[in-house]
Amino acid sequence: MALIVQKFGGTSVGNTDRIKNVAARVAKYRERGEKLVVVVSAMSGVTDSLIKLAKEIMPLPSEREMDMLLATGEQTTIALTAMALHSLGVPAVSLTGAQAGIVTDGVHTKAKIQNITPRQVHHLLKEGNVVIVAGFQGQTPEGQITTLGRGGSDLTAIALAAALKADLCQIYTDVDGVYTADPRIVPNARKLAEIAYDEMLELAGTGAKVMQLRSVEFAKKFGVVFEVRSSLNDNPGTIVKEETQNMESVVIRGVSLDKNQAKITLAHVPDKPGVAARIFKAIGDAAINVDMIVQTASHGASGATDISFTIDKPDLLKAQKVLESIKQDIGFKQIVAVEKIAKLSIVGVGMRSHSGVAARMFEVLANEGVNIDMISTSEIKISVVIDLAKGEQAMKAMHAAFLG
Amino acid sequence: MALIVQKFGGTSVGNTDRIKNVAARVAKYRERGEKLVVVVSAMSGVTDSLIKLAKEIMPLPSEREMDMLLATGEQTTIALTAMALHSLGVPAVSLTGAQAGIVTDGVHTKAKIQNITPRQVHHLLKEGNVVIVAGFQGQTPEGQITTLGRGGSDLTAIALAAALKADLCQIYTDVDGVYTADPRIVPNARKLAEIAYDEMLELAGTGAKVMQLRSVEFAKKFGVVFEVRSSLNDNPGTIVKEETQNMESVVIRGVSLDKNQAKITLAHVPDKPGVAARIFKAIGDAAINVDMIVQTASHGASGATDISFTIDKPDLLKAQKVLESIKQDIGFKQIVAVEKIAKLSIVGVGMRSHSGVAARMFEVLANEGVNIDMISTSEIKISVVIDLAKGEQAMKAMHAAFLG
Repeated sequence: MALIVQKFGGTSVGNTDRIKNVAARVAKYRERGEKLVVVVSAMSGVTDSLIKLAKEIMPLPSEREMDMLLATGEQTTIALTAMALHSLGVPAVSLTGAQAGIVTDGVHTKAKIQNITPRQVHHLLKEGNVVIVAGFQGQTPEGQITTLGRGGSDLTAIALAAALKADLCQIYTDVDGVYTADPRIVPNARKLAEIAYDEMLELAGTGAKVMQLRSVEFAKKFGVVFEVRSSLNDNPGTIVKEETQNMESVVIRGVSLDKNQAKITLAHVPDKPGVAARIFKAIGDAAINVDMIVQTASHGASGATDISFTIDKPDLLKAQKVLESIKQDIGFKQIVAVEKIAKLSIVGVGMRSHSGVAARMFEVLANEGVNIDMISTSEIKISVVIDLAKGEQAMKAMHAAFLG
Repeated sequence: MALIVQKFGGTSVGNTDRIKNVAARVAKYRERGEKLVVVVSAMSGVTDSLIKLAKEIMPLPSEREMDMLLATGEQTTIALTAMALHSLGVPAVSLTGAQAGIVTDGVHTKAKIQNITPRQVHHLLKEGNVVIVAGFQGQTPEGQITTLGRGGSDLTAIALAAALKADLCQIYTDVDGVYTADPRIVPNARKLAEIAYDEMLELAGTGAKVMQLRSVEFAKKFGVVFEVRSSLNDNPGTIVKEETQNMESVVIRGVSLDKNQAKITLAHVPDKPGVAARIFKAIGDAAINVDMIVQTASHGASGATDISFTIDKPDLLKAQKVLESIKQDIGFKQIVAVEKIAKLSIVGVGMRSHSGVAARMFEVLANEGVNIDMISTSEIKISVVIDLAKGEQAMKAMHAAFLG
């Protein structure tokens, strides 16, 4: 009798009919004799409505009270899901994050799980219940309600799977699994049967947003094998797990295209120690995430350099403001912003043991007449910034070359 | 610096604008230097929407899961109310029933408060916060979320006032206070400055539903003085408190009319010990509340009697079915149901020391040509069942005679 943790996101529990579908799926697993812990998100739209209510009261509500407010979303879903299982004759009990023993730090709206004491979960499972746990939430040791931030329900599922030593963790979503490329752009993209944590992490970091980075990191840290699969059909999904030797035989696992970045170039930055640090501290203080950074060689006698970096497109105006405010102080000459860029990445643990991957990538781009603007590499990933207009064409060519 | 517990019902917090109004009122008290604990209900309509969702899943949902579901309603309001106070610059912290230390028994959907450990409330008050507490809910010693049933938020406020030894407890509602009669029927009805617990209890039991019986009973038991007042204006309300000598000088405190009852008469019931018990046990087992009961003297030689009693009108069909099922077994001859009745009551602790109140009441009814169908009396109340069509006329005459 295996113990399975299943997680269903907001779309999968978006209305009472869908909740009944989730219950039917859970009941089917239970008929096979599995022990089940089911993690659910707030019904889609609910969290947004709650945020809207809060904003009607004040523009920047207290984070503690936002957590108190938002935690009601999942609490509603767990009760309804338990009822839906009851209506199928399946014994089920719902637990809030706090009741499930999920203890977090006190950083409201983006709390980190500190530990899980699943005494109550174990007890209820032993009594023969399906246990329904509210995703996305926990409580501090002092009993304050907290939420885990974006992707929090995935994290709840994976952390519970780790704490319960579950045999399997299934993340149900609206896609069939992880693909070699976005099938909307590359029609012959294939679903991967399995993928290594590191590859999944790199893909998550390159715009292929199946899951948030932190959940994958957590799974990797605690060795939780999980499956990403669809709540709309019974197709097997993609298993995310520790790298195996077998995986290295495939050079590239996937290709991704991120059209949501913008590039900023600072021209004639004084080439002195500490300058880059001051620039990126100012950017970081404004809560703007920087992705790729490239610094050109010094302009000969001038003692100045150019620094280019990419950020999320919606942060562009804010970043420009921050940079204008430090421009004079730091002494760079110009801020050039480019919105029409795309980041194309190839990811695969096989890169480590295969040479010439970068050369081949650049060759493919050259054949397509695509100019490379920036390059950034990791052990298992190569990303290039290119013209947005040529992004999809380049992605298709890359997929054909490495995965076709 | 007084400690005040204020309770606002669902209509008073029905949308974000009303929540802001509540916050403005609370802030005004706080400016005077008062310490404040604010108990709020779910926003009006929210509880019904949640019940609707549950019924979409199954007709008779588990009571434990209903509590899990419904408790989200008040949790939403406390967070929004805290935010509304923040937006006025008032420090405020919200607490769920569980966090406020409200411990109940495990009878889901109608739990009883066992004790309150307001350690957290005291701590937050000491830090200078307004403390916002979710009404209607608590938790068992084992950490299960419970709700207190109808009128539960009033009960939360009064129980908190008792546990905190508050100086004042204000129940804000959509009426100005307790009136000598329903002003919609008796235009010259007057608002009472004060009323004794027992009078309030009798009034609550006679259809003047300002508050649920249990909250008043709790207040009486623990000597919590509370004020019923309007959240729509600044008028003083009605103080509900222990009887004072002064109160006895007024013979009748109020007149009430309950049009929501129906009468059942069982004809020719065998006049044997245990028969009445069997009848009312069957009715009670069907969860039907019986109000007045009258048994006529035995019909001479037949050894049979008639039993009449009143119940809530919506329960009439159910009661008739129950009675049909035991008719043969018990051996009564006929079930006569009358829907068009009204119960007219006069209430006042002054009755105890004034004789002839009943006689005067019957005289007034006779002058109006109103026939009396049933009579029931307590120490401080007389109720009569009369023809529904003459109910309002009789009520006006009664008010004029005793309170005009």
